[in-house]
Amino acid sequence: MDLKSKIRVIEGFPKEGISFKDLTTLLLDGEAYHHAIQACVDMLGDLEYDVVVGPEARGFLIGAPVAVLAKKGFVPIRKPGKLPSETIRYEYELEYGTDALEVHSDAIKPGDRVLVVDDLLATGGTAKAVCELIEKLGGKVAGLAFLMELEFLDGRKVLDGYSVFSAISYES
Amino acid sequence: MDLKSKIRVIEGFPKEGISFKDLTTLLLDGEAYHHAIQACVDMLGDLEYDVVVGPEARGFLIGAPVAVLAKKGFVPIRKPGKLPSETIRYEYELEYGTDALEVHSDAIKPGDRVLVVDDLLATGGTAKAVCELIEKLGGKVAGLAFLMELEFLDGRKVLDGYSVFSAISYES
Repeated sequence: MDLKSKIRVIEGFPKEGISFKDLTTLLLDGEAYHHAIQACVDMLGDLEYDVVVGPEARGFLIGAPVAVLAKKGFVPIRKPGKLPSETIRYEYELEYGTDALEVHSDAIKPGDRVLVVDDLLATGGTAKAVCELIEKLGGKVAGLAFLMELEFLDGRKVLDGYSVFSAISYES
Repeated sequence: MDLKSKIRVIEGFPKEGISFKDLTTLLLDGEAYHHAIQACVDMLGDLEYDVVVGPEARGFLIGAPVAVLAKKGFVPIRKPGKLPSETIRYEYELEYGTDALEVHSDAIKPGDRVLVVDDLLATGGTAKAVCELIEKLGGKVAGLAFLMELEFLDGRKVLDGYSVFSAISYES
């Protein structure tokens, strides 16, 4: 199945000059959505991992069903104040200001092999932040899986040393 | 499997007096998570639906894998400003102030039979708002499925006339 043809491209969202890759048109097609999630599981080959981790909110749309199809647990990464138990936080720079992500401190055990899943690899900033959180808790990043990758933004450079997989890639 | 035993209860979150049902401990257990999603699909019996709809962010953790296991499409309901294409909005009252939800206008077609999925039925406010959005677009609410239900908050009264299903219920 040509998954890329299921993604809608919207020019100028969230701001001028951005060619936004809208995955909602893929999600809406039940056959394509199932196929995309299965493709995300299959592209990992024999990668070994214990648990799947994904950042809110679009990351949940790919990471949660990947975990369920692979019969693995899922750890949500959330914006500050959303998780009810003890958390650790990672703050990172944005173009303007900073952002922060949190994870439950007891969700990842030392030595856990963790698969990071998100909808999109762009500059790699969020993915790198997620890796930092996992490693702070003693987890090992087994790999990172993205439904889509914007190759021209060189996110893989930021993720140097990690195994990175993507199902759909854009060269421009 | 006793799914309720996989849910962690946290007292005093997000504020005093609330006994918060934390589903992250269930998500973390791969077998339990898969079982819970399968239970959400199975409890619907022979209910007929074309598409699954769920509100961010926790609703994605249940609704997205339900859609994938059932091989149906998924429509995300989001906070204002997050969806890239044309949306319609529904504003609703909270204890203090108002909140709003949006959905892509072209995501639901007139006559579509829609299954609403969320993690929790509490007072029913969010679920009712989601139903209003679906009906504004001409969709038909086939039913509502929740992983958890707080029976003592009488959310089913707010959803009177709809078919409501839940996998785990709390009487207090």
